[in-house]
Amino acid sequence: MKIRPLHDRILVKRLEEEEKTKGGIIIPDTAKEKPIEGKVIAVGNGKLMENGELRPLDVKEGDRVLFGKYAGTEIKIEGEDYLMMREDDVLGIIEG
Amino acid sequence: MKIRPLHDRILVKRLEEEEKTKGGIIIPDTAKEKPIEGKVIAVGNGKLMENGELRPLDVKEGDRVLFGKYAGTEIKIEGEDYLMMREDDVLGIIEG
Amino acid sequence: MKIRPLHDRILVKRLEEEEKTKGGIIIPDTAKEKPIEGKVIAVGNGKLMENGELRPLDVKEGDRVLFGKYAGTEIKIEGEDYLMMREDDVLGIIEG
Amino acid sequence: MKIRPLHDRILVKRLEEEEKTKGGIIIPDTAKEKPIEGKVIAVGNGKLMENGELRPLDVKEGDRVLFGKYAGTEIKIEGEDYLMMREDDVLGIIEG
Amino acid sequence: MKIRPLHDRILVKRLEEEEKTKGGIIIPDTAKEKPIEGKVIAVGNGKLMENGELRPLDVKEGDRVLFGKYAGTEIKIEGEDYLMMREDDVLGIIEG
Amino acid sequence: MKIRPLHDRILVKRLEEEEKTKGGIIIPDTAKEKPIEGKVIAVGNGKLMENGELRPLDVKEGDRVLFGKYAGTEIKIEGEDYLMMREDDVLGIIEG
Amino acid sequence: MKIRPLHDRILVKRLEEEEKTKGGIIIPDTAKEKPIEGKVIAVGNGKLMENGELRPLDVKEGDRVLFGKYAGTEIKIEGEDYLMMREDDVLGIIEG
Repeated sequence: MKIRPLHDRILVKRLEEEEKTKGGIIIPDTAKEKPIEGKVIAVGNGKLMENGELRPLDVKEGDRVLFGKYAGTEIKIEGEDYLMMREDDVLGIIEG
Repeated sequence: MKIRPLHDRILVKRLEEEEKTKGGIIIPDTAKEKPIEGKVIAVGNGKLMENGELRPLDVKEGDRVLFGKYAGTEIKIEGEDYLMMREDDVLGIIEG
Repeated sequence: MKIRPLHDRILVKRLEEEEKTKGGIIIPDTAKEKPIEGKVIAVGNGKLMENGELRPLDVKEGDRVLFGKYAGTEIKIEGEDYLMMREDDVLGIIEG
Repeated sequence: MKIRPLHDRILVKRLEEEEKTKGGIIIPDTAKEKPIEGKVIAVGNGKLMENGELRPLDVKEGDRVLFGKYAGTEIKIEGEDYLMMREDDVLGIIEG
Repeated sequence: MKIRPLHDRILVKRLEEEEKTKGGIIIPDTAKEKPIEGKVIAVGNGKLMENGELRPLDVKEGDRVLFGKYAGTEIKIEGEDYLMMREDDVLGIIEG
Repeated sequence: MKIRPLHDRILVKRLEEEEKTKGGIIIPDTAKEKPIEGKVIAVGNGKLMENGELRPLDVKEGDRVLFGKYAGTEIKIEGEDYLMMREDDVLGIIEG
Repeated sequence: MKIRPLHDRILVKRLEEEEKTKGGIIIPDTAKEKPIEGKVIAVGNGKLMENGELRPLDVKEGDRVLFGKYAGTEIKIEGEDYLMMREDDVLGIIEG
């Protein structure tokens, strides 16, 4: 079963703690807002702009992304946990 | 009796729990916001943009959709429960 | 005496409970927000858009409409109860 | 002494209770928000739109209007009570 | 010393109580919001619109104006009390 | 060390109390909001408008300005106190 | 590992206290909001404007910047502390 996010939403699979500590991003507990890391599974067809046009998203399927701790909505698909969020919830894209 | 949603609203019939567990979407109780699954019964004639034009909706009649737990307004039509919501309340469209 | 609603407002006469149960819309008491049904008595000359133009309303006089429980302002005209609301308060138009 | 309301404001003289009951609008005490009736004494030169133009008002001097209970600011001019409000506070115009 | 208000701000000198009772505007104590009367001492060079242009103000130096009780910021210049407010705080201009 | 304010921000040095009483602006303690006077040390390269253009600021380096008591962010540079604020926090420019 | 901030976000490395006191910016404890100093490590590809275009940022990689105390989200990358913030959180750029 596939989910096609609507407009500027993206479906993200969280990268678990141990995956991240391999030189990944650790969340400082004290941090007021803890960014979390994940992989982009699917992206929407674009952000609806005021002139009615859909602007393609800059975040792509397969990107590794960083996002705020409270970003998105948790959902379970075929027993797996995912997050559905807006592109604007993404802080940055992890390269290399 | 037929209801034509106005502008960017859509009428949705919730898919009951057991229908969903056939490989469907399960709502993790702990989830801060539990997305719910449903079938689109009717869609409005378009989203009113700032320039006064109606932009046709991307969600279509018959689509299976995912939406936030608090999305929309509950209504009963001829004894059946439905939800009237905005297109923007839809998180994603379920394919396959 | 006639009331001409201003701009994007519409004057609505509520359809009483028993009128609705003839296959009409029943309001589930538990419903967080109970949509109510009514008939459109008069509509304004249009919604004022940012460019200063008035965009004619899609809701017409005589339409049977569905709206949220808290929609509009209650008024009494010549002893009769009415609701004055914005077009955007209308959830949908009942056809057939 | 004459007051010229600024931009999209209008000066309104409330129609007292007995004037209204001659087939006028009665305010249901229970009503969450009680619209009140009045006569338009003066109107501003137009609503300032985003492009800097002034759009003439649709409400005219001499119109009998309906407005929300909490609309506008009370002022006394030469011993008389008036209300200064925005055109958008007007629910409708009473005709006939 | 002269103060040139910035953009859509205006400098106003309040007209004291006795000046107003000469057929002026009296503030009904009960009034929810008491408009106050004053004379415009200086006006800004215009309101900054979204397209970056400055739109000249409609309120002029020397105008007698009416404004809401909580409008503006109190300042003292060379021992005299003044109010600095936005043009939009002005309810109307007193003529004759 | 020089600070270049970003976009529509300006760097201001407060004029101390005694400097102001030389016919300057005194802050009435009772005043709900006490405007404060200062000298503009540096200005940003312009206000970012919706169309993406930078609109040069009207406030210039060296201007003596009046601003609201709660305006801006206090900073200390090389032991000296300054305020960083938006151009829109400026009430007016003191001339002569 | 490199992080490419999204759109108008920038990645900043805080300059520690002692680095700052070499004629740097000291944070007055009493200050309502304490600006903090840091070095820009990476910048996003531009701010998404209403017309759908990305406007390149004015803040550049390597700039020394001043920002509000509560600006951004704290993250740890390979054991190092960083802040991810919007360009608009930057108060000014430190030159010389």
